[in-house]
Amino acid sequence: MTKLSNEYIEEVVKACRPFASRGSVVDHIPGLDQSHLTDLGVTIVTLDGDVFSAGEDHNDFSFQSISKVILLLMALEDFGKDIVFQKVGMEPTDDFFNSISNLEDYEGQKPYNPLINSGAIATASMIKGSSTEERFKRCLDFIRKITENKKISMNEAVYESEVKNGARNKALAYFMESTGVLSSQESDDALDLYHRINSIDINSLALAKMGCFLSNHGRLIGSKKQLISPEHVRTVKAIMLSSGMYNESGSFGVEVGFPLKSGVSGSIVGSVPGQMGIGIIGPAINKKGNSEAGGEALRILSRDLKLNIFHDSNVKNLDIK
Amino acid sequence: MTKLSNEYIEEVVKACRPFASRGSVVDHIPGLDQSHLTDLGVTIVTLDGDVFSAGEDHNDFSFQSISKVILLLMALEDFGKDIVFQKVGMEPTDDFFNSISNLEDYEGQKPYNPLINSGAIATASMIKGSSTEERFKRCLDFIRKITENKKISMNEAVYESEVKNGARNKALAYFMESTGVLSSQESDDALDLYHRINSIDINSLALAKMGCFLSNHGRLIGSKKQLISPEHVRTVKAIMLSSGMYNESGSFGVEVGFPLKSGVSGSIVGSVPGQMGIGIIGPAINKKGNSEAGGEALRILSRDLKLNIFHDSNVKNLDIK
Amino acid sequence: MTKLSNEYIEEVVKACRPFASRGSVVDHIPGLDQSHLTDLGVTIVTLDGDVFSAGEDHNDFSFQSISKVILLLMALEDFGKDIVFQKVGMEPTDDFFNSISNLEDYEGQKPYNPLINSGAIATASMIKGSSTEERFKRCLDFIRKITENKKISMNEAVYESEVKNGARNKALAYFMESTGVLSSQESDDALDLYHRINSIDINSLALAKMGCFLSNHGRLIGSKKQLISPEHVRTVKAIMLSSGMYNESGSFGVEVGFPLKSGVSGSIVGSVPGQMGIGIIGPAINKKGNSEAGGEALRILSRDLKLNIFHDSNVKNLDIK
Amino acid sequence: MTKLSNEYIEEVVKACRPFASRGSVVDHIPGLDQSHLTDLGVTIVTLDGDVFSAGEDHNDFSFQSISKVILLLMALEDFGKDIVFQKVGMEPTDDFFNSISNLEDYEGQKPYNPLINSGAIATASMIKGSSTEERFKRCLDFIRKITENKKISMNEAVYESEVKNGARNKALAYFMESTGVLSSQESDDALDLYHRINSIDINSLALAKMGCFLSNHGRLIGSKKQLISPEHVRTVKAIMLSSGMYNESGSFGVEVGFPLKSGVSGSIVGSVPGQMGIGIIGPAINKKGNSEAGGEALRILSRDLKLNIFHDSNVKNLDIK
Repeated sequence: MTKLSNEYIEEVVKACRPFASRGSVVDHIPGLDQSHLTDLGVTIVTLDGDVFSAGEDHNDFSFQSISKVILLLMALEDFGKDIVFQKVGMEPTDDFFNSISNLEDYEGQKPYNPLINSGAIATASMIKGSSTEERFKRCLDFIRKITENKKISMNEAVYESEVKNGARNKALAYFMESTGVLSSQESDDALDLYHRINSIDINSLALAKMGCFLSNHGRLIGSKKQLISPEHVRTVKAIMLSSGMYNESGSFGVEVGFPLKSGVSGSIVGSVPGQMGIGIIGPAINKKGNSEAGGEALRILSRDLKLNIFHDSNVKNLDIK
Repeated sequence: MTKLSNEYIEEVVKACRPFASRGSVVDHIPGLDQSHLTDLGVTIVTLDGDVFSAGEDHNDFSFQSISKVILLLMALEDFGKDIVFQKVGMEPTDDFFNSISNLEDYEGQKPYNPLINSGAIATASMIKGSSTEERFKRCLDFIRKITENKKISMNEAVYESEVKNGARNKALAYFMESTGVLSSQESDDALDLYHRINSIDINSLALAKMGCFLSNHGRLIGSKKQLISPEHVRTVKAIMLSSGMYNESGSFGVEVGFPLKSGVSGSIVGSVPGQMGIGIIGPAINKKGNSEAGGEALRILSRDLKLNIFHDSNVKNLDIK
Repeated sequence: MTKLSNEYIEEVVKACRPFASRGSVVDHIPGLDQSHLTDLGVTIVTLDGDVFSAGEDHNDFSFQSISKVILLLMALEDFGKDIVFQKVGMEPTDDFFNSISNLEDYEGQKPYNPLINSGAIATASMIKGSSTEERFKRCLDFIRKITENKKISMNEAVYESEVKNGARNKALAYFMESTGVLSSQESDDALDLYHRINSIDINSLALAKMGCFLSNHGRLIGSKKQLISPEHVRTVKAIMLSSGMYNESGSFGVEVGFPLKSGVSGSIVGSVPGQMGIGIIGPAINKKGNSEAGGEALRILSRDLKLNIFHDSNVKNLDIK
Repeated sequence: MTKLSNEYIEEVVKACRPFASRGSVVDHIPGLDQSHLTDLGVTIVTLDGDVFSAGEDHNDFSFQSISKVILLLMALEDFGKDIVFQKVGMEPTDDFFNSISNLEDYEGQKPYNPLINSGAIATASMIKGSSTEERFKRCLDFIRKITENKKISMNEAVYESEVKNGARNKALAYFMESTGVLSSQESDDALDLYHRINSIDINSLALAKMGCFLSNHGRLIGSKKQLISPEHVRTVKAIMLSSGMYNESGSFGVEVGFPLKSGVSGSIVGSVPGQMGIGIIGPAINKKGNSEAGGEALRILSRDLKLNIFHDSNVKNLDIK
């Protein structure tokens, strides 16, 4: 079996970096440009607390869609499963992550799931707090806690850009207002929170810690304190598995085989249950929105380290009698 | 922890049977009618070979959509992953299982995945054999082998009905011919094989054995012989998890949490990795096509027996260093 | 041939009023409620200037979607055909008038045509003027001129309601901003102008005059002054014929056979080329958004008066050699 | 005003022929290939019986989609409006002519209109006759009669090709069988009739005569005998106007302004009410399926000869009092 080490991660980064040339860097997010095309940072944090890392793992890029995982976790804690899933479904969709037409399709015209843009705006409306500032602060505190990094903060330039380029998200929010998913009081605030949380700067270490938190059933490593209930963590991982990688979720489920969530900044968070968290930053994304080099790294890691949840080495034969 | 026993399964059946009244029995399949509305058979076969069963577990109903799992397993063995997934995708869809419009959507107009009708017709075109008879015999032999039941056979009346009511499947096949997914040589044969395999009669014990075979990584219990390669079994389970329960796959992923496949006869096969196979027959189905009582039974079993793949009791903490 | 007279119109109103019971009155527009269910006003103004009218022809209801015709006429005059039809198509659609999914379908993601909501917001962005106030004043002046009624004005309560219930229109506008159909400068102003012009109060006489203006090729009766170029009037009539009656445009084309435009207030404007304008107000609308009693009145008028553009009595046999 | 003459048509052909280079010739129809790319035949037959023609007006090409007009005319005569429009709608669609997804959209899952493939297969099921041969013979006789050409016949090679490449049409027919639009008795026969009538060879003179027949309200020139009732002719012309030119019907309505129907062989039939029929053959088609050079010819003819139905010179000011 492949032994986890910094050298091994180094090799993976080396092998995968060339895949970046198949993708392109989104051009509307401050801090991201073609100069980052071949960046690739890969960090693994095991449940024993060991860290293995290589590549551009210190570069901060904005959270983007990975924020959807945070919003879902917090909404579940704040309002519980029943209320959350009245407002947003848990079904995978074959439409794009910013699709608005799929809001015309699904029952009650609610978003298919919380990991597409419309769904994340819906969960953003279910974060408790007396103001957007307070709600955002709660999200930020939570992120700092699970990544054990108090310096994490919002990137003002990215936030301004999110607002300026936010027309599609506005369309999604107002469409949901028109169908009653959001009230007229909620839509502007939910949008603003969504734009803020998307603008948080994060690196691959922080992402790996976040994945680790999910792998550890909602607890920090070495702590018995449940920051999020295990049931909610399971719910989030199940939805990440079926819907976390945009329109490639199915093939990542087959070829990688554990919960993932990607963002258009080229970031990916991965959670290998009971084993490790994985954080990846590789800004060159494909047409589906996923990091080219990052996706390849995940396929290699899963194969080498036998990380697929259905791999026999990961299946605990319980005596349940 | 709940102890598995016939008495326990009996209780589950008793608790779930009333849910049947929410559903209805499809009326076009010979052998299925309203007299079976409240039927419910639940069988569990563990990887130790123990069998726990209750309810109408001896009634034979036709395979219907569960055949899609068999076709996919055999196509993978016959042609390998690369060729199979050139013809059919592995992505979940939000359209109905017999949708034809989604063939106009997806890249190359191929089916989204092998567990919707169009996808199963595509995999049916990739079963080796010199004639439909031979191809069907290979499928039937395989089913008999993995269910350890040599008496399993096709129900002629169901087959006639499948052919007679096969217009939608014909439409799917010819549409795929028109877009080059199937050749003009393949479409009629693939359709016929699909109708035959759908017409195989099966009971909950056989379904549980089939699930067990998947849980045991492609081997019969007590045997080391790989009838299907572990990688192909993993692939099939990943696709069952994201797409096995029609348009409720996402919520079953959250609430049940292991690979499942349902059929409109009200059957469900479940595979709990490393632990057990589950076979359910409950003909009263909901609008999405899933057994009402059977779905409830799965939710209860998953909760009581902690069968969710993400439950911490199922997660093996590997020392991978 | 049926002779046009007030008595005849009276009979038509009497015969059609019962059809209102098949429809319902929209409940979110101030001034419209169930007390108007069986209202029906029908007014005809011929190109000779004769007026025939009956029923509730003095009730003022808001313009709603009929405003789309005005916006298209003015945009064509202000910017010309080439620029207007770069921003909006001229093709009929099978989607609903407030559909947003069809903005994801069509080439360049522009609206299919100017007579659906998205298309009207796009034309509203092409009305010249240094402020929304000025642009609205130009529209209002134009409406007053072609209806020869200086008292026509905006209903403040309706406008407030349009803004309050404007989430769907906001979604359409911002979606178009996201795809570049509208600039970020244009969307809010276009929306506001659209809400204002929809809120103008109008009765069946004014609608008939408006239809007459179109029938008279863009001139007031008795005037040779072209307020709108004949080519633009032809363009507008062609689009009204294929797309003026929401998802019933085709059947009105067959059964009535001249350009029409309806609004959800139950209003309809009709233009019989060279002959007359027709104004109808009948607030009980069907599920497609068209006045039940008004639609029936149009079918009767067309049949009795042989108004179908393809009726041989309307076809001038030109000697074109 | 431009004077109609052979010289004038010659000029039009000369001016439009270069537009062919923007299009391409479909490659699956026998008799059509790149050697015909710049062919252009334009024929006008006036209601006085005069013929003006130029270009490749003697080349025979297969009928293709123009057959849909014949099928609709005959179905209306055989079964009447009510029965025909129970099976097929009269609404324009924004989907492609061979779309199958729009059969999942529309009420009762019937075809939107009779001028798309699904709709024509539906009307083909409503032609009276005891066998497909008899039904086809009736269609052929009717075409020979209205084109006053007894030599018109089916091209066997084209028919064979239609059958061989008929998978999409089969898909449409069986889909309609699956939703009850067609019975299982009807689908195969309707398909076969549809393939046969599409394979009839025709030239621009015959198309012009066909257009003339429509312009003359269902009578041959010089005859008072109604071969088709005027009401059915009006119905067909209204549907041609909104849906005759595939996904460009709207813009042809604006820019040409009279009923048209095109086929993928590059043929177009036009009917200028009360004035003339127009037949065009120009095999280089654009992506929407319409002849590039032929479309341009129609725009020029409409402008020069003022053929738009809404042009004031075509509008008869009736004294209807």
